[in-house]
Amino acid sequence: MQNPKIITLLTDFGKMSPYVGIIKGVILKINPKALIIDLYHEVYPHDILEGAFLLKSAYNYFPRMSIHLAVVDPGVGTERAPIIAKIDNHFFVAPDNGILSYILKDKKIENIIKIEKFTLPKISRTFHARDIFAPISAYLSKGMNLNEFGKTLKTIKKFNLPSVQKNKSGFIGEIIYIDKFGNLITNFSNEFIEKQKFKEIKIKDKIFKKINSAYAETPIGELLAIWGSFNYLEIAVNQGNAKEFLNVKRGEKIFLIK
Amino acid sequence: MQNPKIITLLTDFGKMSPYVGIIKGVILKINPKALIIDLYHEVYPHDILEGAFLLKSAYNYFPRMSIHLAVVDPGVGTERAPIIAKIDNHFFVAPDNGILSYILKDKKIENIIKIEKFTLPKISRTFHARDIFAPISAYLSKGMNLNEFGKTLKTIKKFNLPSVQKNKSGFIGEIIYIDKFGNLITNFSNEFIEKQKFKEIKIKDKIFKKINSAYAETPIGELLAIWGSFNYLEIAVNQGNAKEFLNVKRGEKIFLIK
Amino acid sequence: MQNPKIITLLTDFGKMSPYVGIIKGVILKINPKALIIDLYHEVYPHDILEGAFLLKSAYNYFPRMSIHLAVVDPGVGTERAPIIAKIDNHFFVAPDNGILSYILKDKKIENIIKIEKFTLPKISRTFHARDIFAPISAYLSKGMNLNEFGKTLKTIKKFNLPSVQKNKSGFIGEIIYIDKFGNLITNFSNEFIEKQKFKEIKIKDKIFKKINSAYAETPIGELLAIWGSFNYLEIAVNQGNAKEFLNVKRGEKIFLIK
Repeated sequence: MQNPKIITLLTDFGKMSPYVGIIKGVILKINPKALIIDLYHEVYPHDILEGAFLLKSAYNYFPRMSIHLAVVDPGVGTERAPIIAKIDNHFFVAPDNGILSYILKDKKIENIIKIEKFTLPKISRTFHARDIFAPISAYLSKGMNLNEFGKTLKTIKKFNLPSVQKNKSGFIGEIIYIDKFGNLITNFSNEFIEKQKFKEIKIKDKIFKKINSAYAETPIGELLAIWGSFNYLEIAVNQGNAKEFLNVKRGEKIFLIK
Repeated sequence: MQNPKIITLLTDFGKMSPYVGIIKGVILKINPKALIIDLYHEVYPHDILEGAFLLKSAYNYFPRMSIHLAVVDPGVGTERAPIIAKIDNHFFVAPDNGILSYILKDKKIENIIKIEKFTLPKISRTFHARDIFAPISAYLSKGMNLNEFGKTLKTIKKFNLPSVQKNKSGFIGEIIYIDKFGNLITNFSNEFIEKQKFKEIKIKDKIFKKINSAYAETPIGELLAIWGSFNYLEIAVNQGNAKEFLNVKRGEKIFLIK
Repeated sequence: MQNPKIITLLTDFGKMSPYVGIIKGVILKINPKALIIDLYHEVYPHDILEGAFLLKSAYNYFPRMSIHLAVVDPGVGTERAPIIAKIDNHFFVAPDNGILSYILKDKKIENIIKIEKFTLPKISRTFHARDIFAPISAYLSKGMNLNEFGKTLKTIKKFNLPSVQKNKSGFIGEIIYIDKFGNLITNFSNEFIEKQKFKEIKIKDKIFKKINSAYAETPIGELLAIWGSFNYLEIAVNQGNAKEFLNVKRGEKIFLIK
């Protein structure tokens, strides 16, 4: 038997609405053999940038040729096109609104299609995940070719992502994602930091002289900088919440001082 | 290979308890090939009417002959019977407490069975989803016939659902469901509204002269009336929360003025 | 076709982070035919004892030879070993930190392996669920033998669990788990209580003269003692929240007075 085709779902629908269940129904009605995996539904509503970061952090753990439905779509029903993008041997089914920006920082697009066919017969203007993205993902999982769904696009929308800036005393980064535990994920990649000799790392008035490898290397309740599992430097509190401890939001600056 | 038999789960157990996981174990122990789909577990506790509305909104997106376990069951352990209902070529496994009311507004029952056999050997009086509804769904998914589970019933419990009322200036409807984004779903169906010529739609002191097709047709933070994806008129706030904006609850009246 | 191999997931990652989705990707990349079931992800962060209780309450509802990944792991990155334990014809893949304590109260270990091989090539010190426990579970689901993963251990960590104490007027138990509805699960097993003749059961200043079989046997909003579906005596409020009603936490004592 062939392996089932995986369709992952990343949305901002949350657990508090039945929309995710309905999407699964639409997929299974078209391809009852699809293997649907909830990747994440708790993207902050309408926060494309958070969705983009999480999609990039997760897709590559799935088998090649997996299909990733990614719908954070404040512009639903407006002119932004629905697309299929093939990148890094994975398929992404999503609105063309920048949600692939983080993936495209490192990877090249192999193909982009503007979706024109194989949607549900009646398309609402408020629930394209059900009416467009779910059926397209399902037909794709049955082995249809990209060019059966519409015409090739030359380019898609990309955000300018917050990048590390150089200043006279070192580098300025920022918090790009905050997880449920309140851990602060920065845009200093582990690889970047490994190459620097630094005196200290500073966020607000807190200073770190070293980077830890495990939460438990500091006492419970204390702040630490740690090599993060997303491959970025993180600021955390051992068994606590760094976001609340420091009272910060995404975008907060962090300084690497040489 | 035959398609796997789908069992959807709709409950008020929430994600904060392990009961859903246990139900899945019971099903898979009886039929390891069943395809279990979480439809929705965040029905407001004991709110049969909300469960009934969501079940009706979702079941039909799944393949024919899917099995839907639907347990919002404040009367667990009392006299209400556990039933299997075949409606519109789908199977529903549920307590006989009105949870099929919305479906039965539009569809006729093909068969109702009072469950008497094939439960777990020991039945608790507080967790019938595990002890009755899960094993019944699992055996049903293995292809057993309805009449193997018990005797036919003639009738099941139905709620009087809030229907649109006529008055001298037009029609009075009401909010029947509020989703996580705070969107207010009314009982004015899109089809009903399309047939009316109306001057305005009114909820509390807010007046709408037209119905929008997309959230983004109004500025961010502004209230709008919109053709809803559940096929009912909705009141929403673009990128905001209409429930909080208007401070309303389910049951709030809405007026269509001709 | 053989039945798919089940891998259940129990963690404290919550719904609010993408870590669960990433774990599923790692598993499916190794074994695309594994059947992954979310058992429970809302263990209170770092609360090994709660995880231990829920794991024990749920595993046995799954088919024999199921694999249970159980990660509540405040010591991630420290010396506690990652292990595979075979108990009661089920496999448990977990940190050696006491999370199997409740299971081991009743069941004997058949085998324990300290995991040394078949992890991801690069192991972070903060996300062993992804780097160790997920790939081990996946390879195990492909039919590998326990001794391929590492050496046998003689013993694993066990907590001293709160047991029922005898005193001159009867027995003292305690609340060992509180579910989402606010139901209080005690360590008086149904079997234990059935064997006692008692005058009353007391928690704080509340006294129960009998044990009910269904919530609905008391008026809405009233406190009751009930034969619990976890097979332990529970204190509940009919359609309400006993935890808030009594203002108690896990560990609160409860008295059976003869």
